Amino acid sequence: MVSLQQVINGIKPLDEKAMGLAQRRWNTIAKPLGSLGLLEETIIQIAGMTNDHQVCLDKRCVVVMCADNGVVEEGVTQTSSEVTAVVTENFTKGETSVNNMANIAHAKVIPVDIGVARDVGGEGLIHQKIAYGTKNMTKGPAMTREEAIKAVEAGIHIAVRLKEEGYRIIATGEMGIGNTTTSSAITSVFLHKSPEEVTGRGAGLSSEGLKRKINVISKAIEINNPNPNDPLDVLSKVGGLDIAGLTGVFLGGAFCELPVVIDGFISAAAALCAVRICPQVKGYLLPSHVSNEPAGTLLMSALKLEPFLHAKMCLGEGSGAVAIFPILDMACAVYNNMSTFSDIQIEEYQPLE
Amino acid sequence: MVSLQQVINGIKPLDEKAMGLAQRRWNTIAKPLGSLGLLEETIIQIAGMTNDHQVCLDKRCVVVMCADNGVVEEGVTQTSSEVTAVVTENFTKGETSVNNMANIAHAKVIPVDIGVARDVGGEGLIHQKIAYGTKNMTKGPAMTREEAIKAVEAGIHIAVRLKEEGYRIIATGEMGIGNTTTSSAITSVFLHKSPEEVTGRGAGLSSEGLKRKINVISKAIEINNPNPNDPLDVLSKVGGLDIAGLTGVFLGGAFCELPVVIDGFISAAAALCAVRICPQVKGYLLPSHVSNEPAGTLLMSALKLEPFLHAKMCLGEGSGAVAIFPILDMACAVYNNMSTFSDIQIEEYQPLE
Repeated sequence: MVSLQQVINGIKPLDEKAMGLAQRRWNTIAKPLGSLGLLEETIIQIAGMTNDHQVCLDKRCVVVMCADNGVVEEGVTQTSSEVTAVVTENFTKGETSVNNMANIAHAKVIPVDIGVARDVGGEGLIHQKIAYGTKNMTKGPAMTREEAIKAVEAGIHIAVRLKEEGYRIIATGEMGIGNTTTSSAITSVFLHKSPEEVTGRGAGLSSEGLKRKINVISKAIEINNPNPNDPLDVLSKVGGLDIAGLTGVFLGGAFCELPVVIDGFISAAAALCAVRICPQVKGYLLPSHVSNEPAGTLLMSALKLEPFLHAKMCLGEGSGAVAIFPILDMACAVYNNMSTFSDIQIEEYQPLE
Repeated sequence: MVSLQQVINGIKPLDEKAMGLAQRRWNTIAKPLGSLGLLEETIIQIAGMTNDHQVCLDKRCVVVMCADNGVVEEGVTQTSSEVTAVVTENFTKGETSVNNMANIAHAKVIPVDIGVARDVGGEGLIHQKIAYGTKNMTKGPAMTREEAIKAVEAGIHIAVRLKEEGYRIIATGEMGIGNTTTSSAITSVFLHKSPEEVTGRGAGLSSEGLKRKINVISKAIEINNPNPNDPLDVLSKVGGLDIAGLTGVFLGGAFCELPVVIDGFISAAAALCAVRICPQVKGYLLPSHVSNEPAGTLLMSALKLEPFLHAKMCLGEGSGAVAIFPILDMACAVYNNMSTFSDIQIEEYQPLE
């Protein structure tokens, strides 16, 4: 099995030739030049990732990393950790929001137990439990560096396996009570922003709860003093197993040339970890929506990504990421099926001077 | 057949009771309160339009108003008017961008000849030709007031017929060489903005072409002096038959309680005409995307609408409007199929203080 270091060394830049051919194909299609905007840019980017200007996204899934966070005992959430386990099992029964949305998007939901606090089961659940939840990060590191690496590698192996199974694109999602707290902590450290600037109400905290959450994040950062130039230090000290697993999915996707779609806040925090671990990952990231959490916009701009959807969503589970699959299907349909100018005997538009 | 005046008098405010029930349903669904953002708000709005908290969007279409613009002889476009006729017939053959995208969205494409400059035909084309294109608006009104009313009423009748045929939601689209010129003129008059601020490159004008287009719009407004407080005066003098037809679709949709989705720039200009004719229409408008044309954002903010998609699209044909159908399907899937908190025995989230 491939190691994190092999992945870091093995991620290639996007293929310029395939991107050029994809651009050329768009330019011959009978419609105004560039008029599908981000849809065109995304197909070109996928061509670059896959070294192939023929783009097909017929088999896709959403990988949902599920894990618990010890910091929940500090009262940073509205609900208890038990909800993580309940919803993790609901993914296997098709009973969550993202299951319903993925049905529309023809995407399989693949839940992963990477650190749920109790034993969980169900059809199709991937068992990669690194620990029964993390430790309380206000009292010390959430996990050891070794655990963080194991979680990242678990994510890498899942991405590689999905590529082998024929998946063409994967979306990222997560379930873990307390994971907006860890994501805010990571964002604060990487982007050098105060916890106040990057912390929101999560699943619906009161104003008092929000204040408590900000204090908890400040305390966790103070006690652990994570090094922003050492992404694994940040991940292990103030992150979560779900975020570490997703970091691995982004790295593994880039390594095996599989496009990976970012979801909202937590997934974007993981994407940032992946880019900080290996900047080449950037080319393989596809944005979907801007989370309604305050750090959503900050992370998209730090990653220099332009998300399609601005729908004030903040549900998690990969719900925003699967929402763009049909839009990408539309891009593919035009790209693959449309007549060219010569087919319909209209003169081609000329690029601008 | 219903007249414009009857429609204006007959549009009702949204049903508060149905909206309250829809809100209550969202609040019991097992996910964080409000976490699907605009998706939730849109379902609630549709409940209000249809007087029914049970929302189903299973039958949908995109109405594509096709018409030519006399102003094209002023050299404001890259292509000739003949393209309008060619693409109009291509809609009936399934050969356009929006056909390909509508297939993914399970939406029927319904082209309407409301003013194409030559006779056109094809299976499923609705014949409502008011004139063989408009007149050159730099030399006088684009059409008579009577023609504008006839075009608006044609749009109304199409919306009413689609409602009778069982359509649950309709998207708007257009095809008409020169129609970003007319849309910019309308936007300039209604929003009291200079032509420079509201005019873009359309299907790909050069900088010189853009300058010419701005001058043409200024001249048309100067010569016709449309009265911004008389929407039909604006529509007839510096509008187009496609825009007038779409104005009617928005009015007719609101009248018969059928949700209508705005597309990009041209469709939004028509939505603004409809709201200026009858402010009650506002509640029945659903945004989709922000056009990459400079007036796109201005129109959305004038209409106080928050579009889902920010994808730098400017293709027209209803392409941005059909792009949100699958997202609304996802909203419906969660709304209609998801377990409630009591089903899964988790305590309900409490609304914020």
